[in-house]
Amino acid sequence: MANEQWVPDLSTLNEIDRLVHEPARLMLMAVLYVVESADFIFLMNQTGMTWGNLSAHMSKLEEAGYVKVEKTYKGRRPNTILQLTPQGRDAFRTYRKRMLQVLDDLPE
Amino acid sequence: MANEQWVPDLSTLNEIDRLVHEPARLMLMAVLYVVESADFIFLMNQTGMTWGNLSAHMSKLEEAGYVKVEKTYKGRRPNTILQLTPQGRDAFRTYRKRMLQVLDDLPE
Repeated sequence: MANEQWVPDLSTLNEIDRLVHEPARLMLMAVLYVVESADFIFLMNQTGMTWGNLSAHMSKLEEAGYVKVEKTYKGRRPNTILQLTPQGRDAFRTYRKRMLQVLDDLPE
Repeated sequence: MANEQWVPDLSTLNEIDRLVHEPARLMLMAVLYVVESADFIFLMNQTGMTWGNLSAHMSKLEEAGYVKVEKTYKGRRPNTILQLTPQGRDAFRTYRKRMLQVLDDLPE
């Protein structure tokens, strides 16, 4: 039975940022973490997400202050440029650190 | 802009097991992954979850075939013993491998 065994400290999972944890948003934030900025088409290609799905997740990330959305033009076409804010970058870094801590700590 | 930069392969996140990914269930499965078996009280202590919350998540894991629930007695008191099934153990292992792949692969 468990009561005598070593168990890793998992309390960090209670504080995990669920806004980042959601798989689609985790994917988006990971891409934006690596690149400086990206447009909608690029993110759709990278993640396989639909326009509607991507828009919905981006709105949530923008509301949280994690992503900055800039509407520009590419020639005559509207072009939406996205990038992480410093706050979003911090949130992703903290999330990653916590998850690695939990998952690395476990035995094989 | 992103289009010239290296971006990690994040497609594995599209296949992530959401049953394991949910933070409370991830915590429960991580504890059960480490110990052979555990009772309800032990899991409540380890995770800080309430009885109701723990029951709800355990039911989902049991339905998926990830957790085996055994009702026994400790003296005269009912005692519920929980453990991962081989399928649950595999699911956790796969989840962990995929998440580490994604999170380890990113630059600092």
